Amino acid sequence: MTVNAYAATAADADLTPFAIDRRALRPDDVAIDIDFCGVCHSDLHTARNDWGHTTYPVVPGHEIIGRVRAVGADVTGFKTGDLVGVGCLVDSCQHCAACDHDEEQYCLNGWTGTYGSVDKVDGTITHGGYAQSIVVNDKFVLRVPETLDPAGAAPLLCAGITTWSPLRHWNVGKGSKVAVVGLGGLGHMALKLANALGAEVTLFSRSPSKVEDAKRLGAHKVVISTDADAMAEVSNEFDLIIDTVPYVHDINPYMPTLAYNGTLVLVGYLGPIDPVLNSVMMVLGRRSVAGSLIGGIKETQEMLEFCGAHGITSDVEVIRIEEINAAYERMLKSDVKYRFVIDNSTLA
Amino acid sequence: MTVNAYAATAADADLTPFAIDRRALRPDDVAIDIDFCGVCHSDLHTARNDWGHTTYPVVPGHEIIGRVRAVGADVTGFKTGDLVGVGCLVDSCQHCAACDHDEEQYCLNGWTGTYGSVDKVDGTITHGGYAQSIVVNDKFVLRVPETLDPAGAAPLLCAGITTWSPLRHWNVGKGSKVAVVGLGGLGHMALKLANALGAEVTLFSRSPSKVEDAKRLGAHKVVISTDADAMAEVSNEFDLIIDTVPYVHDINPYMPTLAYNGTLVLVGYLGPIDPVLNSVMMVLGRRSVAGSLIGGIKETQEMLEFCGAHGITSDVEVIRIEEINAAYERMLKSDVKYRFVIDNSTLA
Ligand SMILES: [Zn+2]
Ligand SMILES: [Zn+2]
Ligand SMILES: [Zn+2]
Ligand SMILES: [Zn+2]
Repeated sequence: MTVNAYAATAADADLTPFAIDRRALRPDDVAIDIDFCGVCHSDLHTARNDWGHTTYPVVPGHEIIGRVRAVGADVTGFKTGDLVGVGCLVDSCQHCAACDHDEEQYCLNGWTGTYGSVDKVDGTITHGGYAQSIVVNDKFVLRVPETLDPAGAAPLLCAGITTWSPLRHWNVGKGSKVAVVGLGGLGHMALKLANALGAEVTLFSRSPSKVEDAKRLGAHKVVISTDADAMAEVSNEFDLIIDTVPYVHDINPYMPTLAYNGTLVLVGYLGPIDPVLNSVMMVLGRRSVAGSLIGGIKETQEMLEFCGAHGITSDVEVIRIEEINAAYERMLKSDVKYRFVIDNSTLA
Repeated sequence: MTVNAYAATAADADLTPFAIDRRALRPDDVAIDIDFCGVCHSDLHTARNDWGHTTYPVVPGHEIIGRVRAVGADVTGFKTGDLVGVGCLVDSCQHCAACDHDEEQYCLNGWTGTYGSVDKVDGTITHGGYAQSIVVNDKFVLRVPETLDPAGAAPLLCAGITTWSPLRHWNVGKGSKVAVVGLGGLGHMALKLANALGAEVTLFSRSPSKVEDAKRLGAHKVVISTDADAMAEVSNEFDLIIDTVPYVHDINPYMPTLAYNGTLVLVGYLGPIDPVLNSVMMVLGRRSVAGSLIGGIKETQEMLEFCGAHGITSDVEVIRIEEINAAYERMLKSDVKYRFVIDNSTLA
């Protein structure tokens, strides 16, 4: 089946209309008509080959919300008309230590990305959510609460789960003190989710202009990270710091603000931790620096249900597909509150 | 009471005989005649002011084994003649979050070191175990199993607990896979303790010359860290890596050998993690880099009892006090298997 999509055909080319084939249903497949697709920084990095491993043409998009159009012969968990989501993963080995623990995002045999990956069954390259529809193995399809605004729910599939997973892994709840570094797509979800989990939530920000918005989003406090006195006041304070900053930055100033046994987890940045991390604060307080990658399918489902129960969605700006290139430029300037979401009906 | 000791009087001076006063017993004090004192790298760093905060004269030594000579009026846990130990800490605030959790080594109000610290009660500078005796608050005195060789038991008070604490904190036991980086005073204890806890134990070494010794000490396997193929063979392998290397070194090559959710813990090095740590392996496998500092009094006692039950002591070379300066020079060349221990009777 041929459907309309938008693709990047080269690192320096704008995304343009592109027709793709969606496969015929395998017995365990779900066909989804896409209503909305969030626009993630990874989409932009992949389209522009920032990580050096893009295969062109690439159809980005892994924050997908839509309705089931059809299901394969063996599918029992979904039926036509269901509101569903697809995130960053569409397949994994299903039998390694990570998959056995419902943490497919760490699959030891390599998971299949929603776009730009090789499908394990037929060897084709996967195409993502900047398209009218998608066909996905039912184990990687999420149920989305009907009570949630579908456009606002789209970013839950990547930005939401990427912050939810460390909050849950490090047992954040009532009594926890959590800080968030960076107020973008990931950061604003971290504030909302940590707050709803009952934590005392702080935003580290370089700019006082973000105070009001941060508090509306769930922060109880904003600490201006360039203010040495304010930083000293939160020494030994946080059980978990979720660092959502997507570019190279100094994490040393945050280390003394971790409580002993605390963890700073990087969720937005892949690369050298430069300037060099100093081990003193780590040794003297058994503090950790960790990384975390999106989340597993089971915990993504739990997150969606939690968001349904608490009425949590992303703050979004809905765009038409032909605005995608302009949206990328605005993302590079952090000029979005807080996530662009494509209205996929504009692909018709 | 005046007793014989050895002190450094300046950063560039050899340690020389020095008389010190030991305080009269407070109601909760224990007076200990020292039989043996291990020689830790921290002693050397402090004597030579490598960390820039030494107050001279300094009497090092925090791996102390001896017999109780007398106890204060309120002491009920110890009596004259008991075999006891003193480690790195001789006081803490006793009422912070860390102290409340028996983790005095992370005391938020600052713990008192066995040497070179300011005593909280009388403001004097503490003096360590290179002396005939010591007087210590009973809460910081450990019971030592009589079945253990006392010279070999001395290093348990610092090298032992420094490796035991992370093994316990990260729940090492049967089924765990543990690797150790560095085979010195800390590293050889890590091999023994991890093995006795039931873990599968690997030593990372740059030198094939250490294979035989490592296996005798408890390693099931030695991986030569300069051999790329051997390193690749242990990808995704270890739940915990205890890095005991006391100088700046590259930890990136070890990161892919951590299992997903694994932790590399630095126990021997305070300073910049140079070359820069790359976050990719951390994010892609939720791996952590942490630090850990010695251990609390309660877990030190548990470690001593575990060592008593398993017959574990340090491999030591017993020296006379006048050999201490030569011992420091040999330590700098890693020329000791695996810990120097002073026979304190030579101070008489
Ligand atoms: Zn994403
Ligand atoms: Zn797997
Ligand atoms: Zn020591
Ligand atoms: Zn304390």
